[in-house]
Amino acid sequence: MGKLPSGTISVIFIAQRTVHDDEGYARAATEMHALSEQQPGYLGMDSVRGQDGLGITVSYWRSDADAKAWRDHPEHASIRDAGRDRWYTHYSLHVAEVTRSYDWQKA
Amino acid sequence: MGKLPSGTISVIFIAQRTVHDDEGYARAATEMHALSEQQPGYLGMDSVRGQDGLGITVSYWRSDADAKAWRDHPEHASIRDAGRDRWYTHYSLHVAEVTRSYDWQKA
Repeated sequence: MGKLPSGTISVIFIAQRTVHDDEGYARAATEMHALSEQQPGYLGMDSVRGQDGLGITVSYWRSDADAKAWRDHPEHASIRDAGRDRWYTHYSLHVAEVTRSYDWQKA
Repeated sequence: MGKLPSGTISVIFIAQRTVHDDEGYARAATEMHALSEQQPGYLGMDSVRGQDGLGITVSYWRSDADAKAWRDHPEHASIRDAGRDRWYTHYSLHVAEVTRSYDWQKA
C-alpha cells in the first residue's frame, strides 16, 4: 500500500508456519485473501514470507469497526481455528491506528 | 514481539530491494539494527524478506517521540539516503499506534 490516510487501521499479523500441509495452507490463504477483499472497509494488504517460514502480513482497514467485522466473520474465524491446529506454531497480532504515512518510489 | 501494551508505536516499513549490492546492504542493515537497539524507547522488531526482495520490518517504540528521535538520528538519516540511492526501488512507511495486541503460542 502507498501513503495511507491518518486513522487507517493496520492489522499486523506475524506468524511462524509449521513445516506441514503447505497445500492446505496455500488454499486457505488464497481463499481468505479473496474473501477479505470483499469486506466493507478493506483497503489492501502487504504480505511477505521468508524461507524460514516466518511471515508478516499487514492488512489495512478504513475503520476499527471494519477490522473487527472481518475478525468476527464466520469463515475467517473457522480458518483461524485451522491455523492454530495445523499451520502455525506461533503468532502475534497487533491492531494499530495510522498517524503518519509515507511512500517513496525511485524516479 | 509478543503482546504489546496499548499506545506502543509501530513503524511498518515495506520495501522492495534492488538486485545489487547485497553485501553493502547486509552490512548497513546489521549496523542499523545494532544502533536502533541502543535508542531510548526501542522495544524490538519483526522483520521478514521474501525471495522476490520484498521485505517488511516492523519496529516497536515506547512513544512517538522515541520513534521520531530514531528517524532523525544522523547515522540513520545518512543510511536512509544510501537506501534511496542503491538498495531500494520503492518503499512505504506507516507509523501507527497500537490499540489491541494478541499473542498465541502452540501448547
